[in-house]
Amino acid sequence: MIFSSDNWAGASAPVSEALTRHASGLAPAYGNDPVTEAVSRRFSEIFERDVAVFFVATGTAANALALSAYARPGGVVFSHSGAHIQVDECGAPEFFTGGGKLRGLAGANGKITPEALSAAMADHPDGNPMHGQVSAVSISQATECGTVYRSGEIRALADAAHGRGIPLHMDGARFANAVSFLGLTPAEVTWKAGVDVLSFGATKNGCWCAEAVVFFNSDNALQFPYLRKRAGHLLSKSRFAAAQFDGYLAGGHWLANAAHANGLAQTIGEGLVAAGYRLAWPVEANEVFPVLPHSVIARLRAAGAMFYEWPADNIGSDESAVRLVTSFATDPADVARFLELAAG
Amino acid sequence: MIFSSDNWAGASAPVSEALTRHASGLAPAYGNDPVTEAVSRRFSEIFERDVAVFFVATGTAANALALSAYARPGGVVFSHSGAHIQVDECGAPEFFTGGGKLRGLAGANGKITPEALSAAMADHPDGNPMHGQVSAVSISQATECGTVYRSGEIRALADAAHGRGIPLHMDGARFANAVSFLGLTPAEVTWKAGVDVLSFGATKNGCWCAEAVVFFNSDNALQFPYLRKRAGHLLSKSRFAAAQFDGYLAGGHWLANAAHANGLAQTIGEGLVAAGYRLAWPVEANEVFPVLPHSVIARLRAAGAMFYEWPADNIGSDESAVRLVTSFATDPADVARFLELAAG
Amino acid sequence: MIFSSDNWAGASAPVSEALTRHASGLAPAYGNDPVTEAVSRRFSEIFERDVAVFFVATGTAANALALSAYARPGGVVFSHSGAHIQVDECGAPEFFTGGGKLRGLAGANGKITPEALSAAMADHPDGNPMHGQVSAVSISQATECGTVYRSGEIRALADAAHGRGIPLHMDGARFANAVSFLGLTPAEVTWKAGVDVLSFGATKNGCWCAEAVVFFNSDNALQFPYLRKRAGHLLSKSRFAAAQFDGYLAGGHWLANAAHANGLAQTIGEGLVAAGYRLAWPVEANEVFPVLPHSVIARLRAAGAMFYEWPADNIGSDESAVRLVTSFATDPADVARFLELAAG
Amino acid sequence: MIFSSDNWAGASAPVSEALTRHASGLAPAYGNDPVTEAVSRRFSEIFERDVAVFFVATGTAANALALSAYARPGGVVFSHSGAHIQVDECGAPEFFTGGGKLRGLAGANGKITPEALSAAMADHPDGNPMHGQVSAVSISQATECGTVYRSGEIRALADAAHGRGIPLHMDGARFANAVSFLGLTPAEVTWKAGVDVLSFGATKNGCWCAEAVVFFNSDNALQFPYLRKRAGHLLSKSRFAAAQFDGYLAGGHWLANAAHANGLAQTIGEGLVAAGYRLAWPVEANEVFPVLPHSVIARLRAAGAMFYEWPADNIGSDESAVRLVTSFATDPADVARFLELAAG
Repeated sequence: MIFSSDNWAGASAPVSEALTRHASGLAPAYGNDPVTEAVSRRFSEIFERDVAVFFVATGTAANALALSAYARPGGVVFSHSGAHIQVDECGAPEFFTGGGKLRGLAGANGKITPEALSAAMADHPDGNPMHGQVSAVSISQATECGTVYRSGEIRALADAAHGRGIPLHMDGARFANAVSFLGLTPAEVTWKAGVDVLSFGATKNGCWCAEAVVFFNSDNALQFPYLRKRAGHLLSKSRFAAAQFDGYLAGGHWLANAAHANGLAQTIGEGLVAAGYRLAWPVEANEVFPVLPHSVIARLRAAGAMFYEWPADNIGSDESAVRLVTSFATDPADVARFLELAAG
Repeated sequence: MIFSSDNWAGASAPVSEALTRHASGLAPAYGNDPVTEAVSRRFSEIFERDVAVFFVATGTAANALALSAYARPGGVVFSHSGAHIQVDECGAPEFFTGGGKLRGLAGANGKITPEALSAAMADHPDGNPMHGQVSAVSISQATECGTVYRSGEIRALADAAHGRGIPLHMDGARFANAVSFLGLTPAEVTWKAGVDVLSFGATKNGCWCAEAVVFFNSDNALQFPYLRKRAGHLLSKSRFAAAQFDGYLAGGHWLANAAHANGLAQTIGEGLVAAGYRLAWPVEANEVFPVLPHSVIARLRAAGAMFYEWPADNIGSDESAVRLVTSFATDPADVARFLELAAG
Repeated sequence: MIFSSDNWAGASAPVSEALTRHASGLAPAYGNDPVTEAVSRRFSEIFERDVAVFFVATGTAANALALSAYARPGGVVFSHSGAHIQVDECGAPEFFTGGGKLRGLAGANGKITPEALSAAMADHPDGNPMHGQVSAVSISQATECGTVYRSGEIRALADAAHGRGIPLHMDGARFANAVSFLGLTPAEVTWKAGVDVLSFGATKNGCWCAEAVVFFNSDNALQFPYLRKRAGHLLSKSRFAAAQFDGYLAGGHWLANAAHANGLAQTIGEGLVAAGYRLAWPVEANEVFPVLPHSVIARLRAAGAMFYEWPADNIGSDESAVRLVTSFATDPADVARFLELAAG
Repeated sequence: MIFSSDNWAGASAPVSEALTRHASGLAPAYGNDPVTEAVSRRFSEIFERDVAVFFVATGTAANALALSAYARPGGVVFSHSGAHIQVDECGAPEFFTGGGKLRGLAGANGKITPEALSAAMADHPDGNPMHGQVSAVSISQATECGTVYRSGEIRALADAAHGRGIPLHMDGARFANAVSFLGLTPAEVTWKAGVDVLSFGATKNGCWCAEAVVFFNSDNALQFPYLRKRAGHLLSKSRFAAAQFDGYLAGGHWLANAAHANGLAQTIGEGLVAAGYRLAWPVEANEVFPVLPHSVIARLRAAGAMFYEWPADNIGSDESAVRLVTSFATDPADVARFLELAAG
C-alpha cells in the first residue's frame, strides 16, 4: 500500500526489456546513434509536427534547462506558487537561468489564471530594468494538485504570455496522465493550445530515468545543445535514454500506464468520498488528496499504508490533507485494501 | 573494428541484468532506497574508509559538481591543458563554479608536474583579489593520453595543492583502467596518495549511465546534496544508478572489464610497434595513439575501422596521430583483424 | 517641489568639498590609500567595534554582494515582499548568490515579523535538498514604507535567523534616516540588536556614489574582496569613495542631513493629516505616503509638484496613495508651498 | 617619482570642477537627467555615429558587462594571454558571462594576430557542444605592454571575428592614450576598423570613477540595461558619472591629458635608451618597460621612485623588467629626476 509517489516505482517491463534489447553492440555516442534518431522521429509523429527533442536525466533538469533557453537578464518566470519549479527544485531554474526570479501566483486547484498572470506581468513593464523583465510562463500538466488544465485554459495562458512576447512552458512530469485524462492528442494539449516547450516526463510513468525537452519550434532550440552540455546533461550513451523511450512509446504503452494509474486514482477518490471523506481537489490525473481525520491516518499507517501529508486550505485541527499517488506499478489489490481500511 | 570511443558500447551483461533484477517493486526515491544504501556501503569497503558517495548521470556532471564543492569567488582550477574539463565539457566546470577559471598546464604524456603546478599557483598569491585565488587541482586518471599517474606522482601533486590549501580532484572517467594498470588498491591510488575527491566513472567501462562523486572526507560533502539537486542531477529513481553499480562492482566485474580493455590496448600497441609504427604516448590504460601514414589510415578506414585523428606533437605532413580506444565490449577478433590490416 | 526620490539630489556641500580636497596628489589604488584607511577606522569608531568595511558604487551592489557572502546552493533569502532587493534590483541578489531564491513575506508597515519568518523558514528544513536551504534574512532600515524597525524588533528577527544558523542583513539605504529617527547609536541599531552585515547607504543622503558593506564580524568577510572584485565593484581610485565618506561622516553631517529630511517629512505628514488626508503608513523616516484624491494629485502636479503613485491597500477608486520623499536637499519653502497647495 | 600606475592619480581639475558644478539641484535618477543625455549625445558626436552609451563605475565592470552582452552558453572569449580580462579581473568576465571561458593567445608586444586567433577559434567548430562555442574576441587598446594596435591590425582581427559570427570588443582602459598616439579619430580606431563594442575608460586618464560601455550598433545593446542593473552597476545619481565625462570630454581635455602622459613616457623611454638600457617593448602609449639591473632598481627605489616589476621574456638573472606608468598628473620634474637617477 505504497502511495508515497509515482517515482517509487522502478521500470515497467517494456521499458526494462527495451534497455536489455539495446544493451549490446556499439553505436555512436552523444545522440548520434540510430536508436536516438528513430525515437526522435517518433516524437515528431506523436506531436504531429517536426519537433526538436533533447533527452535529459531528470525532470528538474528538463524544466530548468527548458526555461534557461528563454532566459533574460533579470528575467521573471511566472508559475503557480505551488509548482514543482517553485518549491521542489532547490533553485535549479534560478541557477540555470543565471539568477532568474520565479514568481509564484495563487490560483485554485493548482492552476494559474490569465487574469492573475496578466496582473503579475504588469509589475514588470518593458523598459524598466529596476523591476526585471518577464521571461517565461510555466504551467504543470498535470498540476501539483492532481488537476489537469483544459486546452482552452492553456490557450488563454499562452495568449497572455505571447502578448508579452514570452513563451509558455509546460512541466509535463505527469504529461501522460494529463493526456490520458483529457482524451485529446498530445498535439492538442501542447502546441495547438499555444505551448512552446514541453518537459515530457517519462520517469514517473514507467521509465528508469528518461525525460525529454521538446521544442515545438526548433528555432528556439538552437542554443539548447550547449545549455544541456554546459549543465552536464548530455548523456554519452544516449541509447540508454532512447531505448527507454523506445519501450515507453511503443504500442501506446505510455498511455496505457497512465490510464492504469489514473483509473486507480479515480477508484480511490470515489471510494473515499463514498466513505464520507472530502477531497481537497478533484481527482483528474493520478493523485488523490483526501482530508482525513488523524485517527484514520494513524490506522492506515499502522496497517502499512504509506503516503505524505500535504498542505491544503481549510483543514481542521484534528484532520490533515494527505497525498495518494498511483502509478503504472500500483496494485489494484492495494487500492482495494486501502479503501477497506479507510472505510474502517 | 570500432575504436572510436569506449562510450560507444552499451551496458555489460552483469550491469544490464542488475537493472532488470531491480526493476520491479517500490522503493523510496531520491537515494533513500536499500540498493542505494548497500551500494554506498560497498564504496566504503572498496576504498577502505568511510566515504560520501553521490551518483550522477554523466562524467561532466561528476567533474563539474565535484569542483563546485570547492568553488571560491574568482577561483582558479589547475589541470593539464588537454584535460577533459578543459576541452570537452562546454564550460560546465566554469558554470558550476560560478565562473571559475580553468588554467591549463603543459606537461608530457598528459600529466602535470608539481613544478609546473607550483609555478602557476604562484601567479595567484593569497590576498590579491585582482588575480583571483587558487581553488582546486584536477588530474585525470587515466589521462587523456592513455597514461596513468603513479601513486608517487599523485602524492607530489597533492602535497603541492594542499600546501596552498586547495584539494586534489581526480577525474576518474577511466579510473578502473588506471587501477587495473597500476595493480594497486583503489585506496592507494586515491586518498592514500592525497586525493580529496574522485569522479568515479563507470559509464565508459560497462554501465549505461552511472558516475559517482566520492568524497574521502565527508566534511567536504556537506553542501553536495544541494549542489547536485540545484543542477538537476539528483536522480529520483536512484535505484537505477545503484543497480548499475551493484552489477558493476560485484565480483570484481569492473576490474575484469578494465583488464579486458587494457589488455587489448596493449595488444594493439605492441602489434603496431612490431609493424614499425611509433606511438605518440606509451600505452598504459585502454587507449593507443599510434602515428600512422595517411595511406594506412585510409586503408584501415576503407576496411571498416573506425577511430578519430588526434592532436599530437611532431607529426609529419603525410601522417597523423590517431586514437584507438578499447572497452569491455571490444572483440579480440576485431583487434587481430585491425593489426593484420595495419601491418598491411 | 520635487519629492520623487532622495536620489534626485546631487552631492551635499561637505561631500563635494571633500572630493575636491582629495582630488590632487597620488596615492595607492584599490583601497590601500591613507584616506580609505582613515575612513575605515572611522567606521569602527562609529560602530564601537572593529568592523570590516568595503566601499561599492551602488546600493544594489551593496545588498547583493552582502547576501552573496552568505550564499548557499539552493539558498533562500527571506525579506518583506516589498523590499528593494525583491522588487527593485533586477535580480541582482539572485545573480550574485548563484541563483538564490528571494522569498517575500507579508507584513504590516513594510516590516516582517518573527512569526512570519519562522513559518516561512520551516518550509525549508535542514537536510532536504528539494526545498533548498535557508541562507539569510534581510530587513530594510528604514523600510520601503518609510517606517523604522525598533531595536527589539530587530533583535527578535535576528534571534529567529540565528536560530536557523543564518545571518541577519540590514539594507540601510536610508540607514541615517532610521538612526536619526530612533535616536539610538549606530551600534544599538545594528550589531547590538543582532545584525550581522549592513549595507550602509550614503548616496541617498548626501553622497554622489558611496555605499559601504559593513561586516560586524570580520570572519564573515574573508571572501568579500574576491566577491567584490569578481563583480567589478572594486574601485581603483578608492579615494573617491573614501573622500565622500570623509565629508559625509565628519562632524555628524550624515545625521544632520537625515534630521533635515526626516523633519520635513514629519512636517509634510502632519500638514496633510491636518488638511484632512490619511496616511497609508506612519511617517518615521524621510518618506510620506498620503492617500490623495485624484483631483488633488492633479492640482499638485499642475503646480509643479513631482512624486510617484505607490501601491497600498484599501485605496478607493477616486484616490491613490503617493510617495513623497524628502532629502538633505529638500527646500522647506517647497514643503510649505506643497502643503498650501494640498490644503487647497 | 610615482610611476606605479595611472590609477594612483585623483581627478584632474576640469573633472573635479565639473563635479562641483553639477552637485546642486535636483534631477531625475538612473540616467534620465539632462547631463547624462547631453553627454550621451556627445559620445555620438565624438564617434561620428549614433552609439548606445552606458556608464559604469569600473573598467572591470565595463569589460565584463560588455562581453556578457554577447555571452553564449559554453562561450569562449579570445584575447591575449596577458590581457587585463585574463589576469586582473578576478574572473569577472567568466562570472558575468555565466561561466564563459577566456582563452589566452600568445603574441608579440601584447597583441594577438589574426593567424593565432583563427587557429584558436578552429578548435571550437560550430555545432559541437563538447568544445563550447566561440563568443567574442577582445583586444586591449593600448595593450598591457604599452603598445597600440594600428587600424589595419584591428580590421584584420575584426574580419576574423566576424567571419565566425562573433564581435570584436576593445578594452579601452587607456583608449585616450591609444587615440593620441595614433593621431586618428576615435571612429577610425573603433567601428571604422570593425570594433563592435568599446570599454571607454576615463578613470585612468583624469576621472575619479567613470567608464562607459559604447555599442556601435544599438541593436546589440537591447539587453544591456538589464545586464547592468542585474550586476548592481546602474548608478542612481547618474549625473555624477555624466558630470565627470562632461569635464573630461570638453575642449579636448581627455586627449590633452593623454598627450601629456604619452609624451612623458616617450621622454622616459628615450632617456633610458640613451642611458644604455633596453626596453622590453616599444613605447607607444603611457607605459615604459625598461629592463634594469637590480642595482639600478635598488638605487631608484632608495631615491623614492615607485614602480612595479613586470614579467617579460629574456630577462637575465641580475636584472628585471619594470613598468613605469605616466598619467595626466605626472610631473615632468619627476621624470627628469628619475632619468638623472637612472643614468646614474
